[in-house]
Amino acid sequence: MIKDVLITKLDVVDTPGGNVMHAMKRSDAGYIGFGEAYFSKIEKGAIKAWKRHKKMTLNLVVPIGKIRFILFDDRESSSAQFQEVIISKSNYCRLTVPAMVWVGFQGLSNDGSMLLNIANIEHNSSEVERLGIESITYDWSIS
Amino acid sequence: MIKDVLITKLDVVDTPGGNVMHAMKRSDAGYIGFGEAYFSKIEKGAIKAWKRHKKMTLNLVVPIGKIRFILFDDRESSSAQFQEVIISKSNYCRLTVPAMVWVGFQGLSNDGSMLLNIANIEHNSSEVERLGIESITYDWSIS
Repeated sequence: MIKDVLITKLDVVDTPGGNVMHAMKRSDAGYIGFGEAYFSKIEKGAIKAWKRHKKMTLNLVVPIGKIRFILFDDRESSSAQFQEVIISKSNYCRLTVPAMVWVGFQGLSNDGSMLLNIANIEHNSSEVERLGIESITYDWSIS
Repeated sequence: MIKDVLITKLDVVDTPGGNVMHAMKRSDAGYIGFGEAYFSKIEKGAIKAWKRHKKMTLNLVVPIGKIRFILFDDRESSSAQFQEVIISKSNYCRLTVPAMVWVGFQGLSNDGSMLLNIANIEHNSSEVERLGIESITYDWSIS
């Protein structure tokens, strides 16, 4: 487990007409302020990688489909480790990713998937670093 | 237009592998603090009505499907008016609903719909009022 990464089980409330699915409360673990919330859709097999934020803490929830997240930690304090987290309705969790950890993700659902990121700061391209997918070697093949 | 209701157009960013869809920034109109974010799914034709919050401001976004929101304002300052807002990908907006306005909503998409509410306070049943759907007369039939 990468330091400061949190995986928090979330409640799904069975409600007539359609479920209510929790995402985040300000009293929850991992909440360190609200800057921006946005969705990112991801098609089956597609990969968005790699991105690292210098300042932003990500809080990632997957209300639709199934997404594989790969985190890569090459901070000085780290031994360059990977962590894989798969989130879907059957494992409905929030993934908290601290600043300075590389993130990539892949859609695993035939009908498409979607994440919500509740970030502690607003998007600012000056605090985002990007690398091509080949720059950090990982086997993305779907078993 | 009901007083203090806001409809804010949101950006969709065309991105390889799946679009990024904005929801809310702390600098946006309608943002008055973060308390909780949750999803509510709604099946085609299903109606969730009526609910009014004494303290919560709702910020409603529809990233999946198509939802009809009906607002009803019977505050003393008001002339008991309704407002209908339909949100979908083709009209991708955030609907800000102030406290003390009644809200109901209905799913309009065959494949189901989903909203995200970014609320300024955490859920607290003591500040929620509910009425049965028949208590406020509205023609919910889908044309």
